Order: sequence, then structure tokens, then C-alpha cells
Amino acid sequence: TDEAGKSDRARAVDFPVSVVLPAGGTGERTGLQTPKQFCTFLGRPLISYTVQAFERVSWIQSIVVVVAKENMDLMTDIIQRFQHKKVRVVPGGSTRHRSICNGVLALGGEGEGETAAIDRPKVVIIHDAVRPFVEEDFLYKIAMAAKEQGAAGAIRPLVSTVIATTAEGYLDHSLERAKYRASEMPQGFTFDVIYQAYQRCTESDFEFGTECLHLALQYCGTNAKLIQGPPTLWKVTYKRDLAAAESIIKDTLSRSACIVTGGSAHAATLADALQKAVGALALELEVIPDLMGENSSYLLKEWNFIQVSVDSSCLSEVETLLRDLEAANRALLHPLVVIWVRLSSSDEPSISGREVEPSGIMELASEAKTQNILLYGIEIHQAKDTEQWERSVLKAAEITSALIRDRTPALVGQLLQA
Amino acid sequence: TDEAGKSDRARAVDFPVSVVLPAGGTGERTGLQTPKQFCTFLGRPLISYTVQAFERVSWIQSIVVVVAKENMDLMTDIIQRFQHKKVRVVPGGSTRHRSICNGVLALGGEGEGETAAIDRPKVVIIHDAVRPFVEEDFLYKIAMAAKEQGAAGAIRPLVSTVIATTAEGYLDHSLERAKYRASEMPQGFTFDVIYQAYQRCTESDFEFGTECLHLALQYCGTNAKLIQGPPTLWKVTYKRDLAAAESIIKDTLSRSACIVTGGSAHAATLADALQKAVGALALELEVIPDLMGENSSYLLKEWNFIQVSVDSSCLSEVETLLRDLEAANRALLHPLVVIWVRLSSSDEPSISGREVEPSGIMELASEAKTQNILLYGIEIHQAKDTEQWERSVLKAAEITSALIRDRTPALVGQLLQA
Ligand SMILES: [Mg+2]
Ligand SMILES: [Mg+2]
Repeated sequence: TDEAGKSDRARAVDFPVSVVLPAGGTGERTGLQTPKQFCTFLGRPLISYTVQAFERVSWIQSIVVVVAKENMDLMTDIIQRFQHKKVRVVPGGSTRHRSICNGVLALGGEGEGETAAIDRPKVVIIHDAVRPFVEEDFLYKIAMAAKEQGAAGAIRPLVSTVIATTAEGYLDHSLERAKYRASEMPQGFTFDVIYQAYQRCTESDFEFGTECLHLALQYCGTNAKLIQGPPTLWKVTYKRDLAAAESIIKDTLSRSACIVTGGSAHAATLADALQKAVGALALELEVIPDLMGENSSYLLKEWNFIQVSVDSSCLSEVETLLRDLEAANRALLHPLVVIWVRLSSSDEPSISGREVEPSGIMELASEAKTQNILLYGIEIHQAKDTEQWERSVLKAAEITSALIRDRTPALVGQLLQA
Repeated sequence: TDEAGKSDRARAVDFPVSVVLPAGGTGERTGLQTPKQFCTFLGRPLISYTVQAFERVSWIQSIVVVVAKENMDLMTDIIQRFQHKKVRVVPGGSTRHRSICNGVLALGGEGEGETAAIDRPKVVIIHDAVRPFVEEDFLYKIAMAAKEQGAAGAIRPLVSTVIATTAEGYLDHSLERAKYRASEMPQGFTFDVIYQAYQRCTESDFEFGTECLHLALQYCGTNAKLIQGPPTLWKVTYKRDLAAAESIIKDTLSRSACIVTGGSAHAATLADALQKAVGALALELEVIPDLMGENSSYLLKEWNFIQVSVDSSCLSEVETLLRDLEAANRALLHPLVVIWVRLSSSDEPSISGREVEPSGIMELASEAKTQNILLYGIEIHQAKDTEQWERSVLKAAEITSALIRDRTPALVGQLLQA
């Protein structure tokens, strides 16, 4: 389903679009103290992932995050810490509709005269802070349909049969599943429709309602266009959803790694062998001699790094790499994995090396961790026996995959044996 | 919500209850080749977890698993490999209702005369193979309500608003969320009700229906009692649900560890320090000198093991532990974590030890892995400096927690530095 949408990615809407992100939930259904939108994943609050999903869409001009008054400072800190742009924070109301309404008004409803009118977007997209995986191509569909129809919303097929219950807790009747859908987010509205809907709706709507599409229908006569969204639009609701979200985030971060060989022929041979072994484990690898010149562009993309050193107990190459990554601010949004692979050419473990590195790499790893970079070491012995060598390379590949996928902070600085 | 039900655990129903477990799904919604019920978690198929959930309930007499004909052999293999009792496999039909009906008939509907009547359960519980976390106390509620009312079913509040769509894909109207519920599993029926419902229902019901509660209402006039279940009853449906299920399974396996000190006072000191440090990380620890006598009961429960050795490069203690665990068949249903913690009393790394163990523990770990036991090593140096010692113990505790939680097969046999 992801593939079909890719041709849409280049398209941009040619009218102003802004986003209202209600983030006032209390998270009671996860059973946790922290509201879900502020739960951290790899050190970053969920809401920051959601904000980033909108921020990277070029044609979205601004994002209004609506939070409970007691979380205004927390949200402001998050925006500063993760260097979000395009974002404003406004205080929420006592219900979901009051909060969304505050967000809509902040987009230009309250101002007088020309200034307010100029700032007003043509289309407002409303989303949930706890649905972090929304993609540009789907936002494009919602924005276009909202402009054409006045309102548009994401739907999903029902997973369970919906039933009506009697007051006493017995089955009254079940609904025919095919005729109904779950209403999800994002939803899009022309500014005029959502603004008018909130102007016209009753106190009872503000107090007890939850569905913006319903207000658009009832108060503006707008039948929203419904568009089936991908399953990744689901709402992080229960404790299990936190694990699911973390897994999706880790999958995204674990797609590719860049092997830096330092130009050594031995290291290049190892890199090729690793590439072959890791290829079977679904991790894209690129092999480069260094990060100079054109290759410095690898520092700016979503790569993890594997620095191969031959016959060296010296960490200077990996130190240089760490400095470059820190300079590029690459670990701002999520921890970055750097693996130092040391190839020792003797059949025996090198005693001199073993005495030195464990603490050397451990210290370097402790420093790197303060910069959100997770440094691990793998030692691999260049056996003369081909079969043993292949086994070691496969093992190094398995360890590499596991380290990149799991990102376990407790294991930084370890020199693992392949 | 879990706490409230615990007093129910001791209660047993005093009438025969059997289970029908339709497991014929094709898993298309996960986007994976393997149907969800056969996806493995820590080496074991999901359906085996679900079967185990029923098998451990003393008052459930038999379980009928209904699978597609092409998966009969696979299912039979799973039952043998994981030593499931009480289970029969029957071939499914072309739809969900046909499969469930086959399961019900296998419980005694088709036989003639007294034998069939004797085998027939009073109550049949119907569940999904892909809802592995069902608990005894909830099954008790369903079984009791089914016996009293003829039918009972699990419900959950709706997470999303349900909407009716027009044929053209526009919003028609939205349902008032409070009046409706999601119908989930398990459901329970007296044998007579579910048997009669399938005898009386139409070909169209068999072909297009999915809801057993609906058949009981329509063909037997039985309004099912609806009981709200815990969120853990959810159906593993999408790819993200696989990660959520794995996380719940890992949480369950990571609750407790048993520290074996070998009777050494130094080891006991370390164990106490670890207990204190790990306590903050939410892992229950017990410290015992060995697994002799009464302590051998630890081998039969859900404990992970930490073997502490002092000043020893010798793995004999951990070898003994591994043999005991293998003899107790403890790793049949899931991988078991054993951590060898080596306490070296010198301030310096002991050179002699370092040369020997990495391959010694690696070999032992490779053997253990074939028995589904994951062996890892942690080396901790007994520093004279108290602050440094406390730092090392905390680090050992963090590594221990991570190893027990993550159960990463790629890292077995590593000797990690604390
Ligand atoms: Mg809404
Ligand atoms: Mg049913």
C-alpha cells in the first residue's frame, strides 16, 4: 500500500495548509502516569515525532499544538530541544472540541481585518498527537479532498463487529460490518467550514461531541469525503501500542548502514563480506573509504555507521567519525549507532590490544552517549581457515544487525567477539 | 484491572467446558507470508501461546484447533514439539462459521448414542488463535455467564467513532459511540445453543456471517450476556501487533531472576548489591546459595538465572546449572536467560582469565542455545574504590536487565564488561 502512493510524494498543494494538533489527552488507557503524547521513544517524546511528520512536508505552512495549560512549558521545551520550526503552542480547553476550536481560532479566526485574513490557511488539517506515522502522500489526498468538498477524513475498515447493547448489558443487535467504517485522523476542512461549524455548534456539542466530521455535516451541510488510510494511522491508545510504535520507529532507523573502510584493502574485503552476510538480514549497506568530499553527504542522511579498522588498537578513526557526526548534529532527533569493527590479522587474540581497548572504547562510548550516539565494538579475527572466517563474518553481521535494531543503551562501549 | 480479577483465579467451574479455536486465517492484514497464528515469537508459534493459555486452566477439558487442511501437519507438529495436551486438530471449512461449526461437531455433535453425549461439554468457549493473552479469570466469567444465559461474549469500548458511508464514499452519519461496543473474543455458549444455531442457520449465514452471538440470537432467541474484557484480549491483526505481542511476551518472561551465589560470601555481597541496583529497574530477584534441596523448585518456575562466580575462570558452576535446567526441560516453551557473572577480585583485568573465557563461554553458549538457553557473561572487577564499585554494580545491573529483557540470540557467549 505504501508503494502505490510514492508517485504522489513530489506533488505539492498550491494553497495554504495549516495543522491543528490537539495534544491534551491524559493517557489513562495506557495505564501510565505520563500522557501518551509525552511518552519518550528512544529519548524523544511521541509528540515530537508527530510534529516532525508534518514539519517535513514542504507545503504545510504552520502547526498549532494545543496542550493543557499545565503542559505549555513542557511543550515549549520540547519544541526548543528538538529544534522544531513552524510550530506554535496554544492552551487547550476542557474538552476535545474546545481544544480543537482554540487551535482553529489561533490560525486567524480571532484577528480583525486584513492581517488575520492573510494568515488564514485555505485548508486546516486536524490530526492527533498520538498518531505519529502520517505520510505526506496521505496528507496530500486529505488536503485536496478537503479543498474540493469542504471536508475529508481518514477511515479504516472495522476490525471487530460493532454491537448495540441493552441497558442491562445484553446483546441487542449487531451491525453489518461492511456498511460501517472507523473514523480516524487526519481530517481536513476548509478554514471556512471548520470555523463556521465551531461558530454554530451548541454547548452540548462542545461538551460531549468528539467528531469534527459530524459538526461539518450538521452545521455546514458538508458531507465529508472519506478516504481509506493505511493501518499505520492508528492511534497510540493502550500500553501495547507503545511497544508497537517503538518497533516501527526502530525499523525506520535500522534500514541502512554505511561501512567506512579507511581505504584499507583488508577492511574493504571485510566490508564486502559483511555486506554479503548482512544483505541476507535486510539491512542496506554502502561501502565507502571515508567521509571526505562527496561522501560527506552520508553524514546528513539516515545512515548508521560501521568503522572498520585493521590491525589497530587505536580508536582515532572512530573518534574522527564521532566528531564529524556531532558537528553535523546527526543525533538530534534519535540515537545514532556507530559500530567499530576491529579486524585483527593474527589467528590468536592480540593480548596487547585486549588489555587496552575495553576501557578505551568504554570511555569513548560514555562520551558519545551524552551526544546521543551509541558506540559499540566488534572484534573479528582474520582466520586462515576459510570456513572459520566465514563463520566469524556471519557472526559479526548478526551482531551488527542486532546492535543497530535494538539500540540498547546498556551495551555501549562493549567490545564484542565475532 | 488485572488486580481486581485475581481473587477469581482459584475458582473452578463444576461443569465440563471445551474450547474451539478457529485458526484458519490467512494473515493478509499483517502483510506477511506466514499466517499470523503461525508467526513465531521467541521461536514459538503464536497459536502455541494461545493453546497454552487454555491448557493451564484446570477446568478446561479439551481444546479443538480448527486449521486449514494444508496446515494440519504443521499444527500437529507444533502440538508435538511443544508437548501440548488436551488438544485435537480438525480441518476447517471454507469460511469462519464453517470452521467453527466443524469444531463444535468434533466436540460430540456428530456421534450417535451415549458415547457422544458423555463427551459433550456443557459449555463451549470459542476464541481466536490470534488472541494469545486470555486469562483464567476472564474465561471463568464467560463460562459461568454462558451456562446461565446460554451465550456470553467479550466486549470492548470503541476506540474510534463508527460512521456509515454513502455508496459514493461520503459521510452519511456517525454513530453515538456510547451506545455501541466492539464484539471481541472469547465467547461462550452452552453446547445446545451453539449446536442448534449451526443446525438452523442458512447457507448465507455460513458464507457471509462472522458473529456467533448473532446466530445464537437469531436462531435460538438467546440474548448473549456481554462482559467487558481487558485490553490484552485484542486480536493480533496488523504487523504492528506482532511487535506488541512480542513485547508483552518478553515482559512476562522478564519479571524475575534467581541469583545463585555458590555459597561464597563475596558472591553473596555482589548478589545483594545487584539486588539493590536491579530493584530500581523492576526485576524481582531472589538470592540463593545453590539449587539443592528445596531450592530445586526454582528450576520449575518462571525464573531467569544469574550464576555468580568469584575469582574463577572456571565455568563448572554454570555448566552444572545448565545441565539442571536442561534436565528440568525448562526451556521447552520459551528461551531461558542464564547470566554468568564473574567477579574478579583484582583491580586489574586478570590476563589469564581473559585469554581463556571468551572462547570457553562462547562454546558453552553455542551448545546451550541448541537447548533454547541463552547464556551471556558479565565480568565485574572488585574495585577498592567504593564509588567505582557501585558504578560497576549498577552497570552490571543495567546489562543484566537488558539481557533478560531483550533475549538477543546474536549476543550469546559474549563476556560483557561492567
Ligand atoms: Mg474529530
Ligand atoms: Mg463469532
